[in-house]
Amino acid sequence: MFRIFRKRIVTMTANCAVTIIAENKTGILRDIGAVCAEIDANIITTQQEISAEGKDAGYAKINLEAEFFGDASLLISRLREINGIISVEHHSSAAEIFGKRVIVIGGGAQVAQVALGAVNEADRHNIRGERISVDTIPLVGEETIARAVEAVPRLPRAAILVLAGSLMGGKITDAIRYVQSRGIPVVCLKMVGSASSAADLVVTDPIQAGIMAVMHISTIGVFDISRVRGKEF
Amino acid sequence: MFRIFRKRIVTMTANCAVTIIAENKTGILRDIGAVCAEIDANIITTQQEISAEGKDAGYAKINLEAEFFGDASLLISRLREINGIISVEHHSSAAEIFGKRVIVIGGGAQVAQVALGAVNEADRHNIRGERISVDTIPLVGEETIARAVEAVPRLPRAAILVLAGSLMGGKITDAIRYVQSRGIPVVCLKMVGSASSAADLVVTDPIQAGIMAVMHISTIGVFDISRVRGKEF
Repeated sequence: MFRIFRKRIVTMTANCAVTIIAENKTGILRDIGAVCAEIDANIITTQQEISAEGKDAGYAKINLEAEFFGDASLLISRLREINGIISVEHHSSAAEIFGKRVIVIGGGAQVAQVALGAVNEADRHNIRGERISVDTIPLVGEETIARAVEAVPRLPRAAILVLAGSLMGGKITDAIRYVQSRGIPVVCLKMVGSASSAADLVVTDPIQAGIMAVMHISTIGVFDISRVRGKEF
Repeated sequence: MFRIFRKRIVTMTANCAVTIIAENKTGILRDIGAVCAEIDANIITTQQEISAEGKDAGYAKINLEAEFFGDASLLISRLREINGIISVEHHSSAAEIFGKRVIVIGGGAQVAQVALGAVNEADRHNIRGERISVDTIPLVGEETIARAVEAVPRLPRAAILVLAGSLMGGKITDAIRYVQSRGIPVVCLKMVGSASSAADLVVTDPIQAGIMAVMHISTIGVFDISRVRGKEF
């Protein structure tokens, strides 16, 4: 029932995000998928759980984001007609609220400094109407970091990765190449090991690394990593 | 086809995360849902898109996480049997890799300082095998911040919220109460406005606010906000 495609030619798309409260019974998501398919709404994400507390306790709560080519009220009214649906609440999509994500992975001291630069630069962009968020995890060990780096393309809205550390190589370097092959650029601090040789950009100062990462994914900034690829600052 | 429930009595649950490459045709997600329902795998999240580049270009890519009560290889082998499925790759779940999330929202300078404390504290926990990540967005304006605060319960794995600013009230205070009603505690910096009066904990120093937020959601820390609820430090 679900149809998964992107109509890149049509530019009048909008993401419609809803929270659906439904009876906890088999078939609800299938029915939601059927409605979305009928009106050519492309499901992007679903998240579902049983509400444990509050007025919806015991009901299924489904967060749904779909790409839709028209008035969201049509999708919402069609969803409300489904048997077993209690309520459908329309709200802004995660992309509208939290925007593109800078992901920072590495050692605590350096991750915090990259975040300092990135958060302050994102602030300047968000004040002008953009939405850029800065998401971090401090980790230790080649295997652990490599696994997290590899998982970055699976994170919704991840737009750029900054690796903040003093020694990275081996499996982390392989993981960097994997992330790049998925269209996500990688900034590395200047550090020991092979990781920085695979990076799109190497930056010595962690604060500047964070700032440059934000500037690159900004739609109003003029900085573009592809114009300085492989360089070191 | 999908069944949405949590068997809280059975403790031998594990999250199974897979990336599925499939033909871009109607019905694939319905079929995946059917297989999950048959073997009592509870779908938690789906994310789908068409691969734009690489060897999978033109195919549908579906990231699926399901709660499952047995050997993941059964789920995977059943998924591989579905008509139109090209490949199923098993990997760690987002919860295993990125863990619980501290969310920090507010003004850039203060968000960065809370992140500094939280990242360094999360580092100490993650070294000991926990997984805590620190995710931030700097924003300005009552309406904008209130909308982001309200959206926190919709973020996967969000465990605690820190509001970092100098003046917050009005709709933000209402949004704090909504987030708390969804089981997510809220830490506020000491600031002007009604927001801090609704907070579970008020902390003057932003670095300490970040540290306390991490300590609260840690499974190995001994700090518990409920024991100091409403207090100010």
